[in-house]
Amino acid sequence: MRKIGIPEIEDIALGASLLGAGGGGDPYVGKLVAIGAVRECGEVTMLDPEEVPDDALVVPIAMMGAPTILGEKAVGAGEYQSIYKTVSSFYGKPIFALMPIEAGGVNSMLPIAAAARLGLPLVDVDGMGRAFPELQMVTFTIGGGSATPMALVDEKGNSCIFNTITNKWTEDLARAVTMACGGSVSVSLFAMEGAFMKKYGVRGIVTRSQMLGSAIRRVKESEAGTPEEKFLEITEGFRLFKGKITDVLREVRGAFNFGKVVLDGIGEDKGRSACVTFQNENLTAEVDGEILATVPDLICLVDTETFTPIPTDALKYGKRVLVVGLKCFPLWRTPEGLELVGPRYFGVDTDYIPLEERCKGGRK
Amino acid sequence: MRKIGIPEIEDIALGASLLGAGGGGDPYVGKLVAIGAVRECGEVTMLDPEEVPDDALVVPIAMMGAPTILGEKAVGAGEYQSIYKTVSSFYGKPIFALMPIEAGGVNSMLPIAAAARLGLPLVDVDGMGRAFPELQMVTFTIGGGSATPMALVDEKGNSCIFNTITNKWTEDLARAVTMACGGSVSVSLFAMEGAFMKKYGVRGIVTRSQMLGSAIRRVKESEAGTPEEKFLEITEGFRLFKGKITDVLREVRGAFNFGKVVLDGIGEDKGRSACVTFQNENLTAEVDGEILATVPDLICLVDTETFTPIPTDALKYGKRVLVVGLKCFPLWRTPEGLELVGPRYFGVDTDYIPLEERCKGGRK
Repeated sequence: MRKIGIPEIEDIALGASLLGAGGGGDPYVGKLVAIGAVRECGEVTMLDPEEVPDDALVVPIAMMGAPTILGEKAVGAGEYQSIYKTVSSFYGKPIFALMPIEAGGVNSMLPIAAAARLGLPLVDVDGMGRAFPELQMVTFTIGGGSATPMALVDEKGNSCIFNTITNKWTEDLARAVTMACGGSVSVSLFAMEGAFMKKYGVRGIVTRSQMLGSAIRRVKESEAGTPEEKFLEITEGFRLFKGKITDVLREVRGAFNFGKVVLDGIGEDKGRSACVTFQNENLTAEVDGEILATVPDLICLVDTETFTPIPTDALKYGKRVLVVGLKCFPLWRTPEGLELVGPRYFGVDTDYIPLEERCKGGRK
Repeated sequence: MRKIGIPEIEDIALGASLLGAGGGGDPYVGKLVAIGAVRECGEVTMLDPEEVPDDALVVPIAMMGAPTILGEKAVGAGEYQSIYKTVSSFYGKPIFALMPIEAGGVNSMLPIAAAARLGLPLVDVDGMGRAFPELQMVTFTIGGGSATPMALVDEKGNSCIFNTITNKWTEDLARAVTMACGGSVSVSLFAMEGAFMKKYGVRGIVTRSQMLGSAIRRVKESEAGTPEEKFLEITEGFRLFKGKITDVLREVRGAFNFGKVVLDGIGEDKGRSACVTFQNENLTAEVDGEILATVPDLICLVDTETFTPIPTDALKYGKRVLVVGLKCFPLWRTPEGLELVGPRYFGVDTDYIPLEERCKGGRK
């Protein structure tokens, strides 16, 4: 058990935006919402998963819709009260603690805001260990968990609860209501008991985000080696490419941002070229035609000078970026995991080969 | 208390499709669903509103979406079980009885099917005394009733409950989910206690539909007067026009069928022309440029030979129709009623003048 205040939020936001792997929304907006709530209602208590009783109700909190719209509408103080009321009256018992469902600039932050406003603890766990574009893409789906009953509330005071036959139907129905509510809503989904959370959750993810954020901030203070070496060391990252963005192709299809970014090598990668594809989050990284990493491993683009993670919607011509691969949560590498979030699910015609094998013998 | 079996269903469907005033869906499809349920599960008990205890939970059942899609998907046997479970667990008490929310070819029938399948009684009451296109257009809105908590279920097993700040928001959110579920779903809305139902409901509407249906079926057996005279007598209808359809203009906007039908007079109306506008239901009837009837009074087009009501989507060039006006439920003629369903709400630039005054001194 420890406290999360404003300095911790700064670090968690930065680290989580690296784990967002290009998606997960703008950490600036998320941070403002969390800091605002903590300033108004006090620090948040964070629990280790082991501190949660097996039969306690643990509820993930997230936003659904476009983070850019969240930036305009923000989150009303009443939204989380409304979620609390809806969920606890559905289950007929109080909510014991909240948790994030994914790591990313926005969805790592909103559960902190909700915990502050409701005076509830936050659990150091999530269901992805990174960000993914669709709501069924969580470790809890592998455990047979259901996204529903899912509560959805908007800033105006409208709310609903879904009960669906599959998590894909939850996605479809909740997406339709999200659009009707103006494109950004607060949701709680995959409500679960403590025992299930401990079995399938990605433990320690909030702490990991915070450590990463704090280390990225201090990467230039390093005494041994270059900042880049230091960055790769602290993130346990695989260096995939360093280049200048020469082209960004974007396409919005079915409420997702699809696209690819083309890079010309710089420094030791001069003369080579690379390409990173994405669907909200980065899906594949290819250098000179050879795939070096695919989803569900994390492909992260960071600024070559500041090592700040760059979300896909901030990719721009001329930006110099380091492309780094991070190993995903082990459960994603099982057959059940790959069925949910493997390259073929995203229409990428290649088998999944772990990042570290693809890079073996390469130019680490 | 009396029983509703297959002969009663036949009459109710025919009479209700007259009260649908051009809307309310195809009575053939509705009838098939109701007859199928009664054949499988037995006759339905119908209660007079006075037989319902003041604190009993009474739940209207309806379909939302396009009746043409209902004709393709039909209604699964499990849908009403799912509505029952959702609603009764939300209120924490059993449902005492079901009721229709509007009179029309489809929504008069589905509550009978639901009552048969759930073994619950049906109350002889509704919230319109006719059909209207939007869900907030019920007498219960005037009484301050809320459409929510509204339950929505589809034939696949998905369900949700809405709680919204206004009945207009219910319309918007439920409409979005209806589309995502394929365009036709079963809903329960405006759940209420017996006392409220007795105060604001349109009493005896099922019985009235049945009487009208039975009388229309026997209109040609009349001995005194022409069948047309007999039809006007039994419906207490005002004869507005008789003509041949020369033009039908249709436009689908925001999930509603808008349009108008143009008529050339025949018989005693030869040489005159008329025009009927509609938004799902008929809105205005004009003869030689003079408005003879507007919403909320009922404007019904029936076949000149069989006196079968013709829904707006069955209007065709060359069809010979009698245009008849029926007085609406008195509550619709109050200022509160006209605010909800008066001509100006539908964008018709005229004050509401009761049908019988507009026709006074005319060619009744």
